[in-house]
Amino acid sequence: MNIPETSLPRIVIIGGGFAGLAVAKGLEKKDVQVVLIDKHNYHTFQPLLYQVATGGLEPDSIAFPLRKIFNNLEDYYFRLAEVHQVLPHKNEIETSIGNLTYDHLVIATGSATNFFGSENIEKYTMEMKSVPQSLNIRSLIIENFEEALLTSDLAERNALMNFVIVGGGPTGVELAGALAEMKKGILPKDYPDLDIRQMQINLIQGSDRLLDAMSKKASKRAEDFLTRLGVDIWKNLYVNDYDGKTVHTNNDKTFEAATVIWAAGVTGELINGLDAEALIERAGRIKVDAHNLVVGSDNIYAIGDVASMSSEEYPHGHPMMARPAIQQGKLLAKNLLATLKGKKLKPFKYNDKGSMATIGRNKAVVDLPNFKFQGFFAWFVWMFVHLFSLIGFRNKVIVFMNWVYNYIRFDRETRLIIRPFKNKNKYSFRDEDA
Amino acid sequence: MNIPETSLPRIVIIGGGFAGLAVAKGLEKKDVQVVLIDKHNYHTFQPLLYQVATGGLEPDSIAFPLRKIFNNLEDYYFRLAEVHQVLPHKNEIETSIGNLTYDHLVIATGSATNFFGSENIEKYTMEMKSVPQSLNIRSLIIENFEEALLTSDLAERNALMNFVIVGGGPTGVELAGALAEMKKGILPKDYPDLDIRQMQINLIQGSDRLLDAMSKKASKRAEDFLTRLGVDIWKNLYVNDYDGKTVHTNNDKTFEAATVIWAAGVTGELINGLDAEALIERAGRIKVDAHNLVVGSDNIYAIGDVASMSSEEYPHGHPMMARPAIQQGKLLAKNLLATLKGKKLKPFKYNDKGSMATIGRNKAVVDLPNFKFQGFFAWFVWMFVHLFSLIGFRNKVIVFMNWVYNYIRFDRETRLIIRPFKNKNKYSFRDEDA
Repeated sequence: MNIPETSLPRIVIIGGGFAGLAVAKGLEKKDVQVVLIDKHNYHTFQPLLYQVATGGLEPDSIAFPLRKIFNNLEDYYFRLAEVHQVLPHKNEIETSIGNLTYDHLVIATGSATNFFGSENIEKYTMEMKSVPQSLNIRSLIIENFEEALLTSDLAERNALMNFVIVGGGPTGVELAGALAEMKKGILPKDYPDLDIRQMQINLIQGSDRLLDAMSKKASKRAEDFLTRLGVDIWKNLYVNDYDGKTVHTNNDKTFEAATVIWAAGVTGELINGLDAEALIERAGRIKVDAHNLVVGSDNIYAIGDVASMSSEEYPHGHPMMARPAIQQGKLLAKNLLATLKGKKLKPFKYNDKGSMATIGRNKAVVDLPNFKFQGFFAWFVWMFVHLFSLIGFRNKVIVFMNWVYNYIRFDRETRLIIRPFKNKNKYSFRDEDA
Repeated sequence: MNIPETSLPRIVIIGGGFAGLAVAKGLEKKDVQVVLIDKHNYHTFQPLLYQVATGGLEPDSIAFPLRKIFNNLEDYYFRLAEVHQVLPHKNEIETSIGNLTYDHLVIATGSATNFFGSENIEKYTMEMKSVPQSLNIRSLIIENFEEALLTSDLAERNALMNFVIVGGGPTGVELAGALAEMKKGILPKDYPDLDIRQMQINLIQGSDRLLDAMSKKASKRAEDFLTRLGVDIWKNLYVNDYDGKTVHTNNDKTFEAATVIWAAGVTGELINGLDAEALIERAGRIKVDAHNLVVGSDNIYAIGDVASMSSEEYPHGHPMMARPAIQQGKLLAKNLLATLKGKKLKPFKYNDKGSMATIGRNKAVVDLPNFKFQGFFAWFVWMFVHLFSLIGFRNKVIVFMNWVYNYIRFDRETRLIIRPFKNKNKYSFRDEDA
């Protein structure tokens, strides 16, 4: 991998998400060599992926080149690679571009979509964990409408205009809201020869309320907002199967839909080679102690979504969200430096500053520890927090300009099929004719 | 294709480029039915593709959704389709989504890259006529540098850092300048462990000067600017072959390069079914009369790059550029309406307002009919004209913000590999090892 051997201890970080970047930043200008490895050459601001998928933001504005973060830093190395496995007995990792030894290894690989073992669901539904996946959804939405125009078969047309979102957490709620706003403001203008009222947005939630990690008041208002926007909410419903045409659930209800977006769960993005005792079967996460040290190891750490730290307050690990990831990353950087100096380590304690979700124009819900509010002010806070959290001045400006434009013009202008979504399993009555 | 039959005459326009859009806009709110067909759902502002390829602009800011142009217009239809052929005897076209009859047909298919019949060159070089192609170049440039980092074989590393641009017209010159600025400002910071001085930018021109359609003074200054930026200019040199590794020319000079960008020529993007007498073998264009009527037809028109109108001043047709395309489109709209009313048609006369090319920061060349200037003011004019010509207010703002940012920060921030360029023919020493 062409990383020079120096006398400095080498800390290898796998993953340039919120957690990995927080560690890397905490190690800036210290006496360590840092190697960051990621399969993309950019950091993805995942909370805004749904806006890329619905044409509100360009993909480049929520991505930030990882190399730029390390400009002008000595002993910092970025490598674009996939990590195949860890070899703990050799203090080495095996990657697509060769092997690399480490003194300390930080696993910050994040999470992957959890299809709960269903091959069909994995094959036919769309996921939204990365920029390319969001662009695929954007292409598919528009391709469906272009195709709906061409058929005179009503059932076909309805299926092409039927969007099923599985999962009523923040991702599902925000995506449903954004789709509903497209239905209201943009699609009737773009497709005057289609009856856009026939477009359906179905949001399916397994539990008895949306946003079930938030307060009941937030759930209630989110459900109200979505209902008013025309989203059909299905609660206590599980999706069992989808064959590319029909969604089957745990009761008799079925949906004929060309597009199913799977936001029903995430699982840790594991890497091979760790001891079995360190792995938690159910959630696919890595067991760590209060210092994020992987159980059974003395120089391998896991942070963020992939790590599961059991505490009194969070017996099954912290929520798989940006905030715990960043806090763990920041603390781990300090603890790594303390370890190297033989100093005492500080255990992690999650400082929950609250959570929020946006539903649409002037509509969001915010739960702070002591204050819960919804509506216009919540929406404003949501925007401010997200804008502030974006990495890069250019990105902040471009996202802000787009939001101002979209707000004033009731528009989302990046509805482009730059790369068509071509999947041979894709629902298309034309392909079948051919 | 589900286009309703009305009593209005149907005008079908193939292609949503500068020419096609100019016709469509000229027919707004007139007593005609307009059907615009394009293989993309957006208009591409081709003059700025090189900035997408070099990470200066996001792709979405130089593309504009075609449907948005027709929002709120009656009897306007857009269809996303590829046209397979024209059936002139039936007044019908055959497309990927079915057949459609027309009363008048406007062919505005633009141009394609001209590989002059070389299969190797077509297979191994990169072209830059569309947004996806520009994104492929962007990915490939970064992938090459990531790969150059990993090899200790000097010849391999040099080949990965050797960029050959074939064609010294505006596209080649602008791309070479942008690459040279990346070499200067960005790559040394992103790749501190590579000796970026070894990066080569070779610009190959067949004739004895760059920008040979412009004034000699413009050529001279462009060559000076590029030389100062570190571009190697090769004049009177033809590329005969490229096998993915070695560029062979008409003399002994060869180049070992992983990336060759082919900007050496364009040819009309023809469609099948036209009479042989209407086609011009050499340039791949369609012969039209002074009213852009295709020779041998009475209701098929061709405009823009694909049309060749012979006049005293332009015996081999007008230059294949935006300006003549727009002017022909505007006039054709008027002439179509005149034809429908039985009025007299106006012949086309190209009003050449001049031409320009930018080389880089503060460096451009402008030839106006009576005034030729170069340097900072030319650069300023170039920016103003291009910003003004972009379609869409949002695009103008986003491009402007990016330019301001890039200018102040000496940066180009969208250097992301959103979709890796994966071509099995791609030069890669790692793939060969595997």
